[in-house]
Formats: sequence, structure tokens, C-alpha cells
Amino acid sequence: MKESGKNDQLSPKEIELYFDRLWPICRSITGNGLRESFEILREIIPLQLSEVKSGMEVFDWTVPDEWNINDAYIITPDGEKIADFRLNNLHVVNYSIPVDMEVSFEELDKHLHYKKELPGAVPYITTYYEKKWGFCVSYDQYKKLPRQGTYRVYIESQLKQGSLTYGDILLPGKTDQEILFSSYLCHPSMANNELSGPLTLAFLYREIKKIKNRKFTYRFVIAPETIGAICYLNQNKKQLLNRVKAGYVFTCCGDSGPITFKKTREEESLTNKITEHTLNQLSNGFRMVPFDPLGSDERQYGSPGFNLPVGVLMRTPFSQFKEYHTSYDNKELMDFKMMKDLIHFCTNMVKAYELNDKYVNQIKYGEPFLRKRDMFEDLSTKLSHSELIKMRLRLLNYLDGTNELIDVCEKYGYSIMDTETEINQLLEQGLIK
Amino acid sequence: MKESGKNDQLSPKEIELYFDRLWPICRSITGNGLRESFEILREIIPLQLSEVKSGMEVFDWTVPDEWNINDAYIITPDGEKIADFRLNNLHVVNYSIPVDMEVSFEELDKHLHYKKELPGAVPYITTYYEKKWGFCVSYDQYKKLPRQGTYRVYIESQLKQGSLTYGDILLPGKTDQEILFSSYLCHPSMANNELSGPLTLAFLYREIKKIKNRKFTYRFVIAPETIGAICYLNQNKKQLLNRVKAGYVFTCCGDSGPITFKKTREEESLTNKITEHTLNQLSNGFRMVPFDPLGSDERQYGSPGFNLPVGVLMRTPFSQFKEYHTSYDNKELMDFKMMKDLIHFCTNMVKAYELNDKYVNQIKYGEPFLRKRDMFEDLSTKLSHSELIKMRLRLLNYLDGTNELIDVCEKYGYSIMDTETEINQLLEQGLIK
Amino acid sequence: MKESGKNDQLSPKEIELYFDRLWPICRSITGNGLRESFEILREIIPLQLSEVKSGMEVFDWTVPDEWNINDAYIITPDGEKIADFRLNNLHVVNYSIPVDMEVSFEELDKHLHYKKELPGAVPYITTYYEKKWGFCVSYDQYKKLPRQGTYRVYIESQLKQGSLTYGDILLPGKTDQEILFSSYLCHPSMANNELSGPLTLAFLYREIKKIKNRKFTYRFVIAPETIGAICYLNQNKKQLLNRVKAGYVFTCCGDSGPITFKKTREEESLTNKITEHTLNQLSNGFRMVPFDPLGSDERQYGSPGFNLPVGVLMRTPFSQFKEYHTSYDNKELMDFKMMKDLIHFCTNMVKAYELNDKYVNQIKYGEPFLRKRDMFEDLSTKLSHSELIKMRLRLLNYLDGTNELIDVCEKYGYSIMDTETEINQLLEQGLIK
Repeated sequence: MKESGKNDQLSPKEIELYFDRLWPICRSITGNGLRESFEILREIIPLQLSEVKSGMEVFDWTVPDEWNINDAYIITPDGEKIADFRLNNLHVVNYSIPVDMEVSFEELDKHLHYKKELPGAVPYITTYYEKKWGFCVSYDQYKKLPRQGTYRVYIESQLKQGSLTYGDILLPGKTDQEILFSSYLCHPSMANNELSGPLTLAFLYREIKKIKNRKFTYRFVIAPETIGAICYLNQNKKQLLNRVKAGYVFTCCGDSGPITFKKTREEESLTNKITEHTLNQLSNGFRMVPFDPLGSDERQYGSPGFNLPVGVLMRTPFSQFKEYHTSYDNKELMDFKMMKDLIHFCTNMVKAYELNDKYVNQIKYGEPFLRKRDMFEDLSTKLSHSELIKMRLRLLNYLDGTNELIDVCEKYGYSIMDTETEINQLLEQGLIK
Repeated sequence: MKESGKNDQLSPKEIELYFDRLWPICRSITGNGLRESFEILREIIPLQLSEVKSGMEVFDWTVPDEWNINDAYIITPDGEKIADFRLNNLHVVNYSIPVDMEVSFEELDKHLHYKKELPGAVPYITTYYEKKWGFCVSYDQYKKLPRQGTYRVYIESQLKQGSLTYGDILLPGKTDQEILFSSYLCHPSMANNELSGPLTLAFLYREIKKIKNRKFTYRFVIAPETIGAICYLNQNKKQLLNRVKAGYVFTCCGDSGPITFKKTREEESLTNKITEHTLNQLSNGFRMVPFDPLGSDERQYGSPGFNLPVGVLMRTPFSQFKEYHTSYDNKELMDFKMMKDLIHFCTNMVKAYELNDKYVNQIKYGEPFLRKRDMFEDLSTKLSHSELIKMRLRLLNYLDGTNELIDVCEKYGYSIMDTETEINQLLEQGLIK
Repeated sequence: MKESGKNDQLSPKEIELYFDRLWPICRSITGNGLRESFEILREIIPLQLSEVKSGMEVFDWTVPDEWNINDAYIITPDGEKIADFRLNNLHVVNYSIPVDMEVSFEELDKHLHYKKELPGAVPYITTYYEKKWGFCVSYDQYKKLPRQGTYRVYIESQLKQGSLTYGDILLPGKTDQEILFSSYLCHPSMANNELSGPLTLAFLYREIKKIKNRKFTYRFVIAPETIGAICYLNQNKKQLLNRVKAGYVFTCCGDSGPITFKKTREEESLTNKITEHTLNQLSNGFRMVPFDPLGSDERQYGSPGFNLPVGVLMRTPFSQFKEYHTSYDNKELMDFKMMKDLIHFCTNMVKAYELNDKYVNQIKYGEPFLRKRDMFEDLSTKLSHSELIKMRLRLLNYLDGTNELIDVCEKYGYSIMDTETEINQLLEQGLIK
């Protein structure tokens, strides 16, 4: 953990260094690659790791056996080694059972995956819930493979009773009301649809930690997508249902597209209100899309029993970039400066959550006599008050215990961030509580 | 009743045959013409007939004496027989008291009705609640009548203690929640503003009867307009108030205009929601108009004490075709193919009612593990799920007991009819109930 | 009081005569000028006057000492008498302490006020809550003052324990539910931002008094702005909170701009609904602006503890005319014909309040049988009912105890004033109560 000193300044370069270290590891929804990745992330965010045993029933699902892999390749009839796992871990179908045998091309062909639409790319394929094996190659390579002769296929993997790993940590605040940030870790060498999420979350942790006197408790979760989120929800059901007041899933947030916010399942949520407000105030261009139970872990947080106010922060959604789930989803897609901007945006949004409240004015009958507090100006020779006095009078009138600060800001087109000084003065003067 | 075999296929020709048989009968709000018409309709829909005695007080109204008529005509000073009831039953003012006397033109003129704006048409006039007599002629004919000499006027009618007839039937379903269809029968030879309604209703009965395992009970009512509907509401008040979940009045649904839906008195009704959805999905062009206590029997169903969720299905509203209430409202206005289309539209709407429900997903915490049920597909090499999997995940998420199926369909732009297979599969798999 | 005979006709000339009498008086938030002004207004409206002692604590404020003034002027080094209070009472800073001394220009300069943007105007300045003295001159005059030599400054004023005066009166109706009209009296010779308000209120009193069988009680208040309104609220807190159903502050309503309505703090108020309706029906052009706790006494009525449904009626708002708070806010700005129009508008609005109610139809089940009451017409040969019958049927249907008359009028685009005859007939017939 490095949370003080020089490293505290969020820099694109530092994000990139972590990206480079995480990139080559072969992750899956279980196994040592996943654990190794967590250890690296723990240098930024001190996640507590949990292990969920294979075979455990989690809601409608069952935790699968743990998968690990050392090596995998194909030897062609010409003696050439191809689909070498050690050169690119996408070459092996993730969760392949071990295999070591000689096969004809015809037999091999049933186990080969490629993507005609993107002939140079190696696709990313998994078989978590079916005991199969396979290899992924580019379509260009596939076309050149000899149709005659004997191939040797070799996968040195283990699939056996073990556990699934996830990590979480709470950054406590004055109340136990929580804001949740969640991302996933389970894909092998993939950039936007893998590393962008946990890296954003990890560095955001470091930024939020700097905020003093936090009102909210912040919960950070990194788990394998789908089954990991289901495990997490299964083991933290009651707390999450009672405490989460807002939340976000990070996915595909490493490219240079505009911010895309996918709203929470309930239209009327604090998450949607604060996010839309902050986007309107701080973002040059963004997209808001409705909730839909398709996508990443919002499918689980937004399952009807949970129905948590969790939205999704992305740049380009997975369904909108062609490199998705191929070897082309790599560092070339990444823009670490934009990742830093997103983290800053989230930090500002957190400040909006912290500032927002149902303040209650303490003088309800008649206007407060501001002049005796030196908080007024003379209107005599002007046509109207200064913007500051207008804001003051409006906040004092509408912060009556029925409105949140954000509502008053929306009413008048104020940025909630711009009311901070005034809110603090009104609190100090005892005019609101 | 013919509800099986070849006649089950709804054909414009069959509707037309019934139209032709019903056309010549002189109906009124009471009397034998009304009963004779009911007997013909009972070949299509087995209505149970009820008789309400003259003089009975029904809410603010009193059932009038029963009216019957055998003959009516005028003999001109030239000995010509005109306004002959047996040639066109509109010639006599409906509910005229009997008369047999000689009168001058000046005297006769007080009892003559015509329509200057439509000089060739015989207007349709009634005098249900005032003991008067009169004749209706075209303005063209009126102009030619000799102003001198003696006329003989002859109306052979009876107005005496009797009863008012209405018919209804329930098509039972698994619940006693009802969907009501209502139309009126009381005008003499008139087409769009008379026969189109009960014929649509009668043939719709035959279509709904074919639907298996109906959830709703369907109530079909045919009664004289206004006073008949008031009698019906009076005698079935409690059941209607407790059970009717949606309903429709059919009027003016025989022409070739686009479907017009007049909404229920309460804006937020299942009727409005399902009808608007079905119109959007199935109709090329249609009109939605707000409730207004002017019109047909929606005035009674939508009286404030009842306030039933009953809308109106029309093609061209009565106030928008000039032939309304004249001899020009005849078979030439009718389009039996379009009547069939409307009945089909209503049948589909009934299927939407049947399919719609507040289903409750049985796995609420986390996403259901679809792969173990063979209900999932691999997303690995694709940018997004197939439309079927998307629909599945959305239905599973949002059918949580707070939303009706129609709400989820509206949210995603699905046609409710298109979810039928998927809903059935989710029910079979026990994923929703 | 002159409330009968010829003077009952509201005439711009009469308003102007009162304006001319009130104009020269030097008013302030306390003192004899204020009392003298009240005595003149009492010729139009029999206000009951109350005195609140200096030093009394009223909510967050304290009633200041009473201020009176006899004379004030400056003698220049050239012996010229300038800034003569007796020529223009704006020359002395309102609430100046007494002074009689010789000063240099440099010293005098600290006590001089002028307005560069409006070089010919004498600004209006006050020092209610700070014991200071000062003079106001036009910038044109200021520039010409000799910078050398000795000035004599003379202010013959008294600031001592006394009281603050306000006036109010109730015009009782059948219920104790109140409609409040409030304006302020405290500025010296100023027209739009002073005399227009109390004059409008006073003459409106005379108009409302003519309305017979009033349902509402009308409360009229004139008090010094801000501190006077706070005193009034302080001394009538409970009654105002319990009884005021709607209300208006009059300010800047003497010029010829379009009517401006500033809405009440709660968006959903009867005040907003009736005012918007009446403006739409009766006004050629108007402005509606949202509540904002900046402005006149709506700041007090709309303080969060009171949150009374009190809006503001103006023509040109104070912040939108450059003459505001200067000697240019004088009779030239006034348009007495337009003041009369505003009073008429308010009188009509009062009639809307009086007519509006949650009437309850007495026949709820089925349509009322209008024909037996001679309240119907035959639709037989027409395409639709007359507008009168349509209105009748709509009122009878929707006045069911859940809607106010104004809601039904808004639904159908009726002017509430146009339903008066019909409402009275329905009441007489016992069809509504």
C-alpha cells in the first residue's frame, strides 16, 4: 500500500505501470492468476480477500471447480509450435480440461475457435460450465493450417476442488450508509473489458481516502464477473440490502470515448440524480442509457431481489467496440489520461454525495434577519441582489427538511459543488443543520 | 347456434346474410321487432333474454310503455299513399301513438319531419317519452306535397303496459374477473348506427369461445340504447361493479374508416393500456379520443357511480358521418370485410388480456443460471445476445410481481403477442409463476 | 368610508386623486408619515390599525425604533440650499439619525448617494438597521458640487422608542376559509414600487364588498414591507396557517406592462390553478414566473414555516424597470386605467374562487333523466348536441365530488365564469349539491 507521499498524486503513468504488470497474467474466474492479480492491486487498495469453496451453492448457481494452467500449445504436422499459451494466454479456451494427444485436423477443427469478421484477432473463449477443451487462433492462421497430417495438442491444466477468490474493503465514514464501487477481475490478457475496471476502482479508492470527515462509508468490491458478484451478494446480502444508498459498476472505462452512464433499475434513485447532475456540470459530452438486465454485474446488483441503486460507469460500452473479447482489446485501446479523468470525475461525484443532504433551516417563520449576521447587502440602488445573496436566500428557503440540496441546485441550475462554501457558512452560523 | 364445423370460420358473407335478415325489422326500445331481432342474433350468440316491466323505476329513469306497430301511412289529397311504413319503417316517428283522421296540410305540417341538409333522405325521429305522433319524409317529397286539400293520416300502433327486452350471456373463464362487451339494439332499419354493433359483438362471441383455458369471464350484453343499458346496470349493479376489469361498447363499427377508440373515464385503466398497445401493434392507422359523457352507452357505464373501465370501439364516430340517423345509413355504408377485421382485432386484443399478468419470477436474488436449463447461449465471440435471449433476460428481471407483462412489453417495444412462446417456456421451467 | 352611491363605480380618476394625496408624504417603516397615509387609505378601505412596540422580537427580527423627520438639507459653501427634504423627501437617507454640523466635501462625500447609471435621478436609500445619516442627490448635481469649502448638513429627525403601524380588515363570508390580499406601505414618494400596491388593494376591497353571499372570507393587509409583514405574520400566525386558502401580494402594479403572476411556493396550489385559468381566459398577454424567495412580502408568506399559498400580482417586476428605487419611479410611470383593469381582473378572479367548488352530482348511477326536467333537447336529426347540453352532461358527469369545477373547466377548455348560469340551474334542480 502506498497512500502517502509523492505517489498520492494520481498520474496516468502510474496507472500504466500497474496495467503493464497485470497484463500478462492468465486470469480466470478462479485460480492462481486471479490471486496473483489481486496481490498486485492490493498495492493500491488494501482489499481483504475471501475464498468461496468449489461446489458451494450461491443462489441459483454453484461455484465451479478451481482451474489452473501451466502450459498449452499445438504442434502442427510440420513440427511448428502454434497457439502457444505462453506467448498469448487467449490461445487456450479458458477453463479447458487437460489434454495431451495426437489428432487429425478434422478432429482438431472441432476444438478450434477463430473470428472471421476480425481475421487477424485471436478470440477469447471460455467453457466455465462444460468440461471441454479448445484453442483459439486468428482466422488468418486458421486458414493456413495443413489439412493433412497429425497434430499434437497439449494443455497442462488442472480443474479440481478449490475456491473462488474475491476482494473487498470498507472505507468507513460517519454513518454506515454505503456507496458501493464494484468491478470484475476474471479475463486473461484483456484491457478495456478487464483491467480498466479494477484499476479505476483501485485508484479511486486512493482518492476517496484523501477526503476528510467522510459521511458515507465506501465499499469497494472486485470479484470475478457474474459468478463472483453472485458469491459476493450471497455472502453479504443483508448488509448490502440495508446499507447501499448508491453504487457503480466499472467496466470498459479505459478507452477514450465519452462517459456512458447506465442508470439504476429504479428510475428514481439518488445514484441517477447525483450522477446526472455531476455529468451535466462537469462533463463535456456523455451518454445516459436506461437500465437493462444485460451487461456486466449490474445484472446481479439489479436482480429483482436486490434491486440495488447501482448504475454502471463506462466509456465505450462492450457492445460498441469491435475489439471486444479478442486479442485486439489490448493496450492500444487504452488512454490512461482519460482513465485519470474518469477517476477525477468520480471523486467529484463523491464530493457531491458528501455535500448533498436534507439540511433543515433553523429559522422557518419569516426570513432570517441576515443583516444582523453581516450576511446581507443593501439592495437600495441595485435592481437585484448579487448571485451569492440570491443563492443564500434560496438555500435558506428551500432547505426545509423536505428537499435535498441537490433538488434545490437542480431547481436553480446551480452546481452542487459550487454551494460548498455557502453551505459551510450556513452551518457555521447555525442557520441550517 | 352454430359454433362448430364449417361455419366457425368468420366470413364477411355470413355477417352480411345476418345483416340482410335483420335489416327490414322495425325495432324500437321495446316491442316485438326488438324480440324478433334478438331471436335472429341468438343463432350466433345464445343470449339469455330478460324483460323489464313498463313503469319500473330504474335509477333516475322509468321504463316506458311497450310500443308495437302494424301499419302507418298518409293518403294525400290526390289519393296517393305516401310515407308508407311498410315500405320504409323510418316514415313513422318511432313510438307514435295511434292516429286515424283527416287533417289539413297546415295541421299535418306540425307532424312532419324532414332534413333540409340531406333533401333525399328520410330522417329517423323518436318520441319515446312524449305521447305524440308524426311522420318522416324526405325534403324532396315534402316540397312536392299539395298545400291544399285533405290528408288522411293513419298509424296503427299500440302503446301500453308491457316490457323492455335485453339479452346477455357469460362465457365463463377460470376467474370471475370479467371483460364486458356491450352493444345496443333499438333502431329500425339502420345500418352503421344499429346493426354493425350487435353483429360485431355476436360474431366476436363465437371467436372468443374458441380460445381455450380462458382466464377471464366474458360478458356480452345487447340492450336498447340508453334506457336498456340503464335497466341492465340497474339489475346487475353489484356484479358489474365487482367484476368488470375492462370493457367495450360497440357502435358505428360497420363502415370502412380507421378504428376509433374512445378511452375509459379513468385515464389509467387496463382497457386503455391494452387497447392502445394492441392498436399500436396491429393497426395501420387508428384514432384515440378521450372519454366524454356524450355518445352511446359509455354514458351509462361511465356514469360516476359506476365509472366502469369501459371504452368504445368504433370506426367512424356518429358525429362524423352525415348519413347518421337518416335512411342513408344503410347497407351502402357497410363494409363486411372491415367488420371481420375489427372482430379479428378484438380477438387478438382478448388474447393480449389473456396473456397479460403480473407474473412473478421465482429466482429473485442474482440472475437465474440459464445455462443449466439449456436456455442460454455463449456470448464469447459476439458483441451482444440474440433478441430472444435479451427478451428472456428482460422478462425474468422485470416480471417481479410489480409489473404487468404489458408494462415490460411497453418498456421494450415488444408486442405482447410476440412474448407468448417465451412466457409459456418460462412458466414450464418454473422460472415465473 | 365611501362605499355606496356614485363613488362605487371604480374610476381611474378617483384612483389618481388618492394617488396625488398620498404622493408627497414621507413614509418609512414606522412613523407619522405612515400613519397619515393609512388615514387616507381608510377612506377607501376601513382598515383596523395596530401598533407594534419598538424592541419587540418578531421571529428572527426586532422591531426598530420609530423614526420621524421634519426637515433636512445641505448648505453648500456657496450658501445654496440643496438636497432639500421639503422639496423631495428622497434627498434624505430614510432612517437617518439627526445631524447638524459643518463638514468638508471629503467628509460629506462619505454620506452622499447618487446613481451614475441614471445621472438625473435621486436614488432612494435607507438605513433602518444601522444608525447612520446620509443624503441622496442626482449624479448630475453631485458632479457640480464644489470640492472646496465648508458644507453645512442638517437633519432634523427623531429615532426613538415608538411603534410600527400596520392595518388589516376581514370581509367575512359564509365560511372562515380566507383569501388574503396583502400590500406594503413604507416608501416615501414612490409610485409603482409603493402606492400602486395599497391603492389596488384598497379599491379591490370596495369591489369585493359588492359581491353578495360570499363564500370566502377576505383578508386585506397593508404593512411596511418585510418587517411589517413579519410583524403581521407573528401576530396572526395560527389564523393564517389555518385559514388562508389562497392569497396575493400586490407590488409594482401601476405601470402599463402585462400582468405578471409569480406563483406560490407550492406548485400545486388553488392560487396557481385559479390564477392561471383566469389569466388564460381574461388576459391578452401575461407572464407566469415561478416562486423565488426574492422579491416582496412573498418572501415572508412563503417562508418555509408558513408556506402559505400566496402568489404575487404585478405588472412590471421591480427588477425589470430601471426607475426602481429612484425619483424616476413617479406618476409618469403610472397608468390608472391599467390599475382599474387589474382590479377588474382580480374581481373576476374572486368570482372564479366563489364559483369554484367540489360540487357533487346527486344522480350517480346512470345518466340523469334530463327530459323529465325539461333540460334536454332532441338529438334525432342533428349530428351532435348543442354546446349547452354538452356542457351540462359533462358537468353532471365529472362533478362527482372528486373534481373541482375548475378541473372540469380546464379539461374542456371552458371559462369557469361561463358556467355560472348552468351551475346555478343544476343547483336549483337539485342535480348537484
